[in-house]
Amino acid sequence: MPSRLERANAIRALAMDAVQRANSGHPGAPMGLADVAEILWREVLRHNPNNPTWLNRDRFVLSNGHGSMLLYAVLHLSGYPLPLEALQNFRQLHAPTAGHPEFGECPGVETTTGPLGQGFANAVGMALAERELARAFNQPDYPVVNHHTWAIVGDGCLMEGISHEVASLAGTLKLGKLNVIYDDNGISIDGAVDAWFTEDVAGRFEAYGWHVIRDVDGHDADAVARALAMARGSDDRPTLIMCKTVIGWGSPGKAGTADAHGSVLGDEEIARTREQINWPHAPFEIPAEIYQEWDCREAGAEREADWQRLFKAYQSAHPELAAEFERRMAGELPDDWDKGLVNFAVSAQTGLEPLETRKASQRCLEMIGPNLPELFGGSADLSGSNGTKWKGARVMTADKGGNYYSFGVREFGMTAIANGMALHGGLIPYTGTFLVFMEYARNALRLAALMGIRNIMVYTHDSVALGEDGPTHQPIEQLSNLRTTPNLSVWRPADSVETSFAWQAAIKRREGPTAIVLTRQKTQAQIRSEDTFAAIHRGGYVLVAEQHELQAIIIATGSEVELAVAAARQLSARRIGVRVVSMPSVDTFLAQDAEYRDAVLPPDVRCRVAVEAGHPDYWHKFVGLDGAVVGIDRFGVSAPGDQAMAELGITTDAVTAAVDGLLGGK
Amino acid sequence: MPSRLERANAIRALAMDAVQRANSGHPGAPMGLADVAEILWREVLRHNPNNPTWLNRDRFVLSNGHGSMLLYAVLHLSGYPLPLEALQNFRQLHAPTAGHPEFGECPGVETTTGPLGQGFANAVGMALAERELARAFNQPDYPVVNHHTWAIVGDGCLMEGISHEVASLAGTLKLGKLNVIYDDNGISIDGAVDAWFTEDVAGRFEAYGWHVIRDVDGHDADAVARALAMARGSDDRPTLIMCKTVIGWGSPGKAGTADAHGSVLGDEEIARTREQINWPHAPFEIPAEIYQEWDCREAGAEREADWQRLFKAYQSAHPELAAEFERRMAGELPDDWDKGLVNFAVSAQTGLEPLETRKASQRCLEMIGPNLPELFGGSADLSGSNGTKWKGARVMTADKGGNYYSFGVREFGMTAIANGMALHGGLIPYTGTFLVFMEYARNALRLAALMGIRNIMVYTHDSVALGEDGPTHQPIEQLSNLRTTPNLSVWRPADSVETSFAWQAAIKRREGPTAIVLTRQKTQAQIRSEDTFAAIHRGGYVLVAEQHELQAIIIATGSEVELAVAAARQLSARRIGVRVVSMPSVDTFLAQDAEYRDAVLPPDVRCRVAVEAGHPDYWHKFVGLDGAVVGIDRFGVSAPGDQAMAELGITTDAVTAAVDGLLGGK
Repeated sequence: MPSRLERANAIRALAMDAVQRANSGHPGAPMGLADVAEILWREVLRHNPNNPTWLNRDRFVLSNGHGSMLLYAVLHLSGYPLPLEALQNFRQLHAPTAGHPEFGECPGVETTTGPLGQGFANAVGMALAERELARAFNQPDYPVVNHHTWAIVGDGCLMEGISHEVASLAGTLKLGKLNVIYDDNGISIDGAVDAWFTEDVAGRFEAYGWHVIRDVDGHDADAVARALAMARGSDDRPTLIMCKTVIGWGSPGKAGTADAHGSVLGDEEIARTREQINWPHAPFEIPAEIYQEWDCREAGAEREADWQRLFKAYQSAHPELAAEFERRMAGELPDDWDKGLVNFAVSAQTGLEPLETRKASQRCLEMIGPNLPELFGGSADLSGSNGTKWKGARVMTADKGGNYYSFGVREFGMTAIANGMALHGGLIPYTGTFLVFMEYARNALRLAALMGIRNIMVYTHDSVALGEDGPTHQPIEQLSNLRTTPNLSVWRPADSVETSFAWQAAIKRREGPTAIVLTRQKTQAQIRSEDTFAAIHRGGYVLVAEQHELQAIIIATGSEVELAVAAARQLSARRIGVRVVSMPSVDTFLAQDAEYRDAVLPPDVRCRVAVEAGHPDYWHKFVGLDGAVVGIDRFGVSAPGDQAMAELGITTDAVTAAVDGLLGGK
Repeated sequence: MPSRLERANAIRALAMDAVQRANSGHPGAPMGLADVAEILWREVLRHNPNNPTWLNRDRFVLSNGHGSMLLYAVLHLSGYPLPLEALQNFRQLHAPTAGHPEFGECPGVETTTGPLGQGFANAVGMALAERELARAFNQPDYPVVNHHTWAIVGDGCLMEGISHEVASLAGTLKLGKLNVIYDDNGISIDGAVDAWFTEDVAGRFEAYGWHVIRDVDGHDADAVARALAMARGSDDRPTLIMCKTVIGWGSPGKAGTADAHGSVLGDEEIARTREQINWPHAPFEIPAEIYQEWDCREAGAEREADWQRLFKAYQSAHPELAAEFERRMAGELPDDWDKGLVNFAVSAQTGLEPLETRKASQRCLEMIGPNLPELFGGSADLSGSNGTKWKGARVMTADKGGNYYSFGVREFGMTAIANGMALHGGLIPYTGTFLVFMEYARNALRLAALMGIRNIMVYTHDSVALGEDGPTHQPIEQLSNLRTTPNLSVWRPADSVETSFAWQAAIKRREGPTAIVLTRQKTQAQIRSEDTFAAIHRGGYVLVAEQHELQAIIIATGSEVELAVAAARQLSARRIGVRVVSMPSVDTFLAQDAEYRDAVLPPDVRCRVAVEAGHPDYWHKFVGLDGAVVGIDRFGVSAPGDQAMAELGITTDAVTAAVDGLLGGK
């Protein structure tokens, strides 16, 4: 029977061979972690390779995503639908085995990792989701939600600031079913970490309130098995298992050095490694008996069958809860979830109350919240300012379930935790901060878009009109940054009505995240006909039709729509045919058919002015070289909001002058 | 004689009155920190209000920048050129007293703070700069560089991930002259922090290797004085002074609550506070005797005079060192610093060697480094990949001076530390990471631009052509994000020659940061005439002139310039008059006069194609509605670089087809 070491060496061989064939990749981490992974995957992790999406599986996150071959190797060996061919095509075009693990591309990959530290945060989010769902659905004798979340993190993950944010939160929240394995190999790309990473990691995590298992020899199978069992058994606090490993273990020439990290070992070194680890098999050749030992399918099927039996009994005992659990895990919305929201839009359209769109957003949440128990909100310490907390929000704590959490001043951690919650399933996260501090969380937002998950971001204080807080808080270039992010939907509503449409779209959108960008200041409610109202969902629409033959188009978003409307009124009074297009969601507008788009923006009308209190350059996509943009290409100023807007030229007069300038220039 | 408490109450009164008059701001932190600040400012900090830029002053950073009125109050009271009128105009248009402290707008403000945690990082950078300059310039009996760096940080700063990155580094580097006061008031905007911030901060900082002074009552003047003196005396490790304070101290109704944080107290509460703290004076009225007690000008002048005497003696003993110190602190470049760099450009122009622009950048550093001892480099654990380490780079450690440091995987901390180094003066920092991970550091880059400081960012692996690492590592929207950042200069050179020009511009640019965006893969060297070569510094220029009457213009940057040139060759062979404009720096090009710009891009030539392996939308600024962009509006793919480029349509054929499409469509 193959020994543990042989089974681990199968990982090592696959990793070094796949990297070698791709002539690209990171053999060091998989080779260093092979012994740990062998035990974790075969003996500890409760999963079912036959069904990678089994609802109650343990979640596993490889936060040091560059070690992707570790994950691909164990997925393949344990029987996931990932054939050897996929490993042979490691890092090749359209292979499921991308350079870094990609969610949705490869069965068993729970999240996309590579940008360091974020996998750790995702794992915190998954553990949090598990606990909230357990609190909501489990019943005496029916622990239908009951799994652990495991993560492996590297030195790089722990250097990154986000590891601090989420580890501190996990400790505060006592997420006991989170177990994190620290691959303590003392090497990062620049070499031995002694010169830049000397902190006492154990002390740091104990300060966070974690259970820390120190000094585990990551190549001593018994020690690892003991540590993982201890971690699994300790559910009052999250556990950090500190495994001392040797990067590139087995390579006589490169083990323990940065050379093993991110480059092929080379044919010669691979041959020497084969000899050293006593692995005589050809590249990609795994002896049948090793495959057999590795195969986790039978055990996994039994494990899931046990759970299915439990769930069946639960369905009998608690049919409504069971149906609701299945609905939520499937990510489906209940019937009529948006009834209140639609009604709010209608009443806002008739009520015409000027309102901060952040407050309108809060009212939307009041409408949605009662119908969507899966909605889980939060803010990076700006709950009141962001309007993310609604009346029915129940604050989650370490001891009590809820649907709202103040994440503290941790934008990046919050957003990446929300990614983890969305990935786990059963929850729809939405989180808030000021638009400018989106930047702190920026790469987590990008990963949400890349993964195509439903994660809703509420970004308030969306322009220099926020006023006195000044340029550090005033967004300029952020909107165009959001709009150029693939697969991110962005809404910047002009009033309460558009805000309702933004929320409708955001909740419905399953294939990616949505950013809802909101004002601090009051905005005027816009008057709309029934048709105009109905067109909002198209992302861009004619809000004010021309009163005379069409000469000019003013495109505006958010709080600047009222300036556009006022300018159009002035111009119209001078018998100039001008139309106002409100474009709360550029991406949604661009997704409409050409006929609609051309009807809103007739291609031959080149006198176009865009107005937005943000960087102007983006808008040339719509106004071209012949149009004009009333925007802001400098940093803001600390002053009352209206004065800041005036100082920076975002005024009705500027819009009127821009149209006049273009028409005069004809 | 006014008591300590009365002097502290002067801060409290100014803070609450200024916030009230502005009807906006944060009274809580200044009122809570007044006792600490009184001692720090009057008795501990070695500064000279007469000369806020005295070279050897202690640096002070208010990392919790929303408490700006604390800083404005002590600056005013201690005699800086900040009149009472400025405080009365707190947060008003064009006042030096912006909502958050702004570097360059107000004497005595050492850095712009507000985005939490970054001030802490700046302070680490200042302390690091101080130590490196001391190592370089101090001589026996002549400690001409010898000051401390002080910072105040709030709960929010310590929640932010960046605090972890930089505190860990400061501990590793044993930055003993850094003293950080933690305003431990237990309150953040969402309320008492117990529910989201329960970590053992002292334990955490001890794990980082800091000297921690625990349990200081921030309202017990003797305790604070003792703690600050102890911190000042302890220079082997950085010190954290943990001051327990009450936010809004003195306000009977709001002290100790989140209500005191970010809103006016209100006239009534202010009246009650005046009574409680026994401050009978009218708003903005400070009794003369309190002013007198606060006045630090005489002591400051003496302190600086002592140093000036020392420096004069140093000038006699070490004239060359003294002159060099003054040059570096003035931020002036030595004569002929760029000779090697210019020569490199010339030889690259004649040598025409294909090279990765990241390697060309490294060669530039080899040319610059020996002439610029103030250059201080680093990378976020990607030294080899970024090409930031040159042969003459001397690695800095806790014990040894140098001009290079591996910052570990800490992009945000690194960039904000570099901001602190630039702010301190005497060093020109440059740091590297992959372009996509700029996002981790994004807001520090923004602050560098806002502050207008010379901080150079080297961003390599600048497109999907980086290949197998896949979409997590492949930039798409990052270039347009950089280009829409006000006051950031961006260069994306096409070859070694343009890379040299990028470095020349970056080093010369004193008024703001520069991002140099570089390829992982080899780029072809472009052939240029003498005139063409000379035009590179204009940021955009005609690289290949049309061979026939001008019909079309192809605009390209970086590695796509060679595609544009190849396409132009094909089109030219078909007798189509096409010109290639290389535009390594859009902002530099836009700063040229209209005549030049119109000569490069004749306004009537509307058949324009831009090609860049990044998001296309930005380029409509140049190609308008009639042109076309060959770009990438989706995420990348994990595959060898050339295959990734082909898969995503960045090819010569695509450029040719785009031109044909536009011409055919005419």
